[in-house]
Amino acid sequence: MNTQTTWHHENFEPTGSSIGYRITRKLDEVQSPFQKIEIFESTDWGNLMLIDGAMMLTTKDNFLYHEMMSHPALFTHAAPKRVVIIGGGDCGTLREVLRHPGVESATQCDIDEQVTRMAEKWFPELCESNGDPRAELLFDDGVAYMANCPADSVDIVIVDSTDPVGPAEGLFNKAFYESCFKALKDDGILVQQSESPLMLLDLIKEMRGEMGKAGFTTFKTLPFPQPCYPTGWWSCTLARKGGGFDFRTADARAKAFPTLYYTADIHAGALSTPPFVAAALGE
Amino acid sequence: MNTQTTWHHENFEPTGSSIGYRITRKLDEVQSPFQKIEIFESTDWGNLMLIDGAMMLTTKDNFLYHEMMSHPALFTHAAPKRVVIIGGGDCGTLREVLRHPGVESATQCDIDEQVTRMAEKWFPELCESNGDPRAELLFDDGVAYMANCPADSVDIVIVDSTDPVGPAEGLFNKAFYESCFKALKDDGILVQQSESPLMLLDLIKEMRGEMGKAGFTTFKTLPFPQPCYPTGWWSCTLARKGGGFDFRTADARAKAFPTLYYTADIHAGALSTPPFVAAALGE
Repeated sequence: MNTQTTWHHENFEPTGSSIGYRITRKLDEVQSPFQKIEIFESTDWGNLMLIDGAMMLTTKDNFLYHEMMSHPALFTHAAPKRVVIIGGGDCGTLREVLRHPGVESATQCDIDEQVTRMAEKWFPELCESNGDPRAELLFDDGVAYMANCPADSVDIVIVDSTDPVGPAEGLFNKAFYESCFKALKDDGILVQQSESPLMLLDLIKEMRGEMGKAGFTTFKTLPFPQPCYPTGWWSCTLARKGGGFDFRTADARAKAFPTLYYTADIHAGALSTPPFVAAALGE
Repeated sequence: MNTQTTWHHENFEPTGSSIGYRITRKLDEVQSPFQKIEIFESTDWGNLMLIDGAMMLTTKDNFLYHEMMSHPALFTHAAPKRVVIIGGGDCGTLREVLRHPGVESATQCDIDEQVTRMAEKWFPELCESNGDPRAELLFDDGVAYMANCPADSVDIVIVDSTDPVGPAEGLFNKAFYESCFKALKDDGILVQQSESPLMLLDLIKEMRGEMGKAGFTTFKTLPFPQPCYPTGWWSCTLARKGGGFDFRTADARAKAFPTLYYTADIHAGALSTPPFVAAALGE
C-alpha cells in the first residue's frame, strides 16, 4: 500500500449527504463517447469505479447490489428462462443471473463498451461468467433494444442503470417502461434500481407512476444496504403486469450456488416494507 | 434555509470511508467534563449531534438505530419488565423501550448529563418519554452502575454506547460484561451496539469473545441500515446465558405501538445472518 493516501469525497446534492473513501492512487481513466470512467485504488474497499465523478461500485461491497438486483426477481418468477439486463456493464448482475441453472439466455445491453472493458480489467471477478454460452453482451442503446424486443419474449428485465440523469435518463420514463411491458410475458417481472428508500421516496413514487402508466399494476420496493451509494441504503423496485411478490422460498433456501448477502429470510425481510416507506408510497 | 451551506465530512480511519452532510449552521456546542458535544443544522437530515467530532445521530435517520437496539430484544425476551440502558443519553432508546406496556421500569445510565440536556433541546421528540413514571434517568458511570446492580434483577441490558474508544472503552470488555451477566436473570438478554457488519467484523468477533469469557453462551448479530454511521450499515449484538433468539412473532406482529422501520418480518430478516458475516464469525 502506498503511504500517501488522500480522501475522495462525493457530495450528493439530492440527499444533502456525502460518502467518501481513502484512496491510494488512480489506477485508470478513460473518456468514452458517453461518460468519463475512472478507477481508483482504496485502502479498505478494493478498487472503485466512478462514472462522471459518481461512485458506481467498489470491490468490497458490490455483492450487495448485484445479489439484490437479481435473486429476488429470479426467485419470484416461477421459471425464468430469458433475462435481459439493460445497463449493468460491469457484468456483476449478469454473473448473478447466470447462477440460476434454469436461465437459458441472458442478454446484457449497455450503451458503453468501455464500462465492460474497465470491469474486465479492474473487477475481473464480476466478469467471470461473460464467457458463459448463455450470455450475450451487447453494447448498444438499451432504449432501442427494448423497443425492438419481440413481444412476449422475456421473463425478466433488469434495469441496472446509473442515476436518472445523463445517459440513463431515458430508462426511467413511460415510453421505456412500455417497451419493457410489451417485451415481457404476462408473468414477467421488471426490476429497476430505485435509489435511496430513506431520502429519495419521491423518485420511487414517480418511477412507479411511470411504470403504472405503462401498464404495470403491482409493485414492490425492496430495500438493501449499499454502503457506496448515497445514504448507504438502496433499493430495487419490482413491477409486474399482475400478481404478487411471493417467492419460491423453498427453492431460495435450497439454492445450489453461493451468495454473500442474499438468503431466503433476508429476501422475506426485504419484502416487509418499512412502515415509513409504505406510508410515503401510499401502500 | 440559509443560502450559505457547507459540507461537513467525517473521515473514519478504521473503515477507510467517510460520511458527510450539507449543513447550514452550528446551533449549539458544549464541552462537558467528558466530551465535546456539537449540534449542527443540516439541509436534509434535520439536526445533527456530534460528540468529539463523531456523528451520533440525525433527526432524519435515528429511528433505525433506536428501534433496532430495543424491539428485537424486547420481543425476544418472554416478558421483559426491568430494562437497563447504559449510555443512550439522547433518550431515543429509552423512548422505544417504554413503548412496551409490559416494561415496569427502565433505567438509563449515561455518564454525561450534557448529552441528555442537548437532546432535550435539539431532539425533543426523543425525550418525550422521559417523564414516564417508569423511567429513571441517571447520570453516572455505567461500568460502576452495572457492577453495583443486584444479581438476577434485570431482564434486558442495552449498551447504547459510543465507539469503543474514549469514555465508552470500558463498555466493551470482559469485566463489564461480567457485571451484566451477574445482573441479568437467567433468561436475560444483553444488547450491545456492534458497529459495521461490513467492515468491523473483527471488532464484533472480539466483542463476542469478551462476552463469552463473561459467561454468555449464545450470540446473534442483527444488521440494520444506519446511514449516519460508518458504511451506512450497522448492527446490534444480542447475547444470552443460554437459549436462542426466536422471538414472540405474534406479539411483534400485533404490537399496539407505531414504528417507522421495525416490523416482525424485518426482525426475522435481521436474524438471517448474511453468509459472509456468518463465515467471518464462524457461525
